[in-house]
Amino acid sequence: MIVLFTDFGLAGPYTGQVKAVLQREAPGEAIVDLFADAPAANPKAAAYLLGAYCAWFEAGTIFLCVVDPGVGSARAPIIVEADDRFFVGPDNGLFEIVRRRARQARVLEIAWRPPALSATFHGRDLFAPVAARLARGEPPPAAARDASSLRQSEWPDDLAEIVYIDHYGNAMTGLRAAALGDNAGLAIAGRPLERARFFADRPPGDAFWYENSNGLVEIAVNRGRADRVLALAIGTPVSVVGRREDR
Amino acid sequence: MIVLFTDFGLAGPYTGQVKAVLQREAPGEAIVDLFADAPAANPKAAAYLLGAYCAWFEAGTIFLCVVDPGVGSARAPIIVEADDRFFVGPDNGLFEIVRRRARQARVLEIAWRPPALSATFHGRDLFAPVAARLARGEPPPAAARDASSLRQSEWPDDLAEIVYIDHYGNAMTGLRAAALGDNAGLAIAGRPLERARFFADRPPGDAFWYENSNGLVEIAVNRGRADRVLALAIGTPVSVVGRREDR
Amino acid sequence: MIVLFTDFGLAGPYTGQVKAVLQREAPGEAIVDLFADAPAANPKAAAYLLGAYCAWFEAGTIFLCVVDPGVGSARAPIIVEADDRFFVGPDNGLFEIVRRRARQARVLEIAWRPPALSATFHGRDLFAPVAARLARGEPPPAAARDASSLRQSEWPDDLAEIVYIDHYGNAMTGLRAAALGDNAGLAIAGRPLERARFFADRPPGDAFWYENSNGLVEIAVNRGRADRVLALAIGTPVSVVGRREDR
Repeated sequence: MIVLFTDFGLAGPYTGQVKAVLQREAPGEAIVDLFADAPAANPKAAAYLLGAYCAWFEAGTIFLCVVDPGVGSARAPIIVEADDRFFVGPDNGLFEIVRRRARQARVLEIAWRPPALSATFHGRDLFAPVAARLARGEPPPAAARDASSLRQSEWPDDLAEIVYIDHYGNAMTGLRAAALGDNAGLAIAGRPLERARFFADRPPGDAFWYENSNGLVEIAVNRGRADRVLALAIGTPVSVVGRREDR
Repeated sequence: MIVLFTDFGLAGPYTGQVKAVLQREAPGEAIVDLFADAPAANPKAAAYLLGAYCAWFEAGTIFLCVVDPGVGSARAPIIVEADDRFFVGPDNGLFEIVRRRARQARVLEIAWRPPALSATFHGRDLFAPVAARLARGEPPPAAARDASSLRQSEWPDDLAEIVYIDHYGNAMTGLRAAALGDNAGLAIAGRPLERARFFADRPPGDAFWYENSNGLVEIAVNRGRADRVLALAIGTPVSVVGRREDR
Repeated sequence: MIVLFTDFGLAGPYTGQVKAVLQREAPGEAIVDLFADAPAANPKAAAYLLGAYCAWFEAGTIFLCVVDPGVGSARAPIIVEADDRFFVGPDNGLFEIVRRRARQARVLEIAWRPPALSATFHGRDLFAPVAARLARGEPPPAAARDASSLRQSEWPDDLAEIVYIDHYGNAMTGLRAAALGDNAGLAIAGRPLERARFFADRPPGDAFWYENSNGLVEIAVNRGRADRVLALAIGTPVSVVGRREDR
């Protein structure tokens, strides 16, 4: 299975052209759109989202990941192999959290180049053919390099910011609920939020936070849009009090 | 064929994770996105939309339907078998119109639970595996129960409200055109609308109603957006005069 | 491979019903969503977009194209065969640029009609079954007609207007970069734009133009939305100075 994690959008030509390459180069392989609206041009926020969502997929899954504002510039194309999952994409921090949480990880720099490489669409021209090769079981067209060479060591293990606003207006943070501890409190712009288990737990219109189905701290409003009610956007900071590691 | 009818959106992680489960559990089965933007958290409006659109699909089709604001609370997970089509989803009224219009229908309460069931994503954890089982031809992991147990008997057979705004700004009502009668008139906020056969039937900018390709009364503006021109939203009431059953 | 080029949107019922027909009539055939957000009800702008994007696909590809404000009226359903690619859709100018750029092209008028043909959804009822037949290798259910019969001869070879705004807010024009010449300049509302190779070539916030990955002149802002910064919409005119053919 090839899983797409991009900021390409679905309706326009980018995801479709990537899938055309995958279907031609790896016929019959299942392709799943995980995120086509990952934080645009924001590899840092995207890294926490990917770190939370990739773990749900089985070993052997190939992730084709493109959040790549530096496309065409000097940033390298890489493959990260982490706990038997493969991640193909740009070396711009997008795989930092995946690597940090993996028991085993190695980084390969992609040496292969296609006959025709556009300046701005490496997702289609470079990353998709490489993902298809991996799906066919071929060895990565890449050479191992020091996995610690390019790190974003200053990024925290959990990010106390909004990293994604979903279709309903719910706002995911870069915080794992499991890292928070049972007595931790959460606040947005000084306004404390209580924890709930699910939406119908709270009266309509009430803002709360809960552990979402992939383990992230998510802020929501029952029968409402949290992004509008609380004026949330990607990058909005979240305050945590009484976090496990604070004690 | 498994048909998805949800309020999940396509770009974010929900539809993708559901499809990953379906592809793993029922490999090769065709999956079709019918609606990913069904009225959010509004099973009543969604019920009329589903009732109109499911009839177009062939016998044997499996519908995975999730408009489920009560996820995690006491509402039961069910399978409705109606005229040789299967509907898997929450027991919150979403299947009321399907059942009412079917020649034959029975309701089964899903007894099976997955090893890991999140509090807020039963579409992925519970309904998708059940839909995949049905697609594989296995018996429903469910026990029959009195089909009349949970009904929304106060809901009308046709709903004189907007139930969906499409990509063009056209507004579908919960009314079947066939139920209206040839001489019925339609009005929005006191403004009468004439009937047309198709868009080019009317001058650009003109608002009208027509029978859409799945039999619903739909309000549109040739070369314009009816939702903006007429200030329509899901729930906006529509007036009908001279309806067949009124005479 | 069947490639979809429409203004249907993805989330609502139109693309899904078309795919249900294709999967039933041509099981196992790969289906790719190229554009589901082609310029709505605007076959002229769509024609330049299609002309630029179809060339990237291999010979043998079948394009199912629906931008069809005249659906239900007298416009004919046609098949265009151009350089071993097939285009199925309405005869309203949508294929004008494809035909003009092809080395070889012929036009067939579709004679076949389905048992049930809705007035407003020929994409599902007429064009999808025809595309599926072609995908199965069957002869077109259509008769050749004079390829020059319906032309939009007044349309230019390259259109100096915005024809598409993408997910990032980048604005594609109907101009091929190769037709511009190396010393051509571009301006929007009197504001000159410099050429760049890729996004990171320019400082954040800077507007520029570049040749996109399918050869079109595209206007963008590094780390910003060109549509908002420059107030661009489909139809906004672009000025070209020093174009190759001007000299």
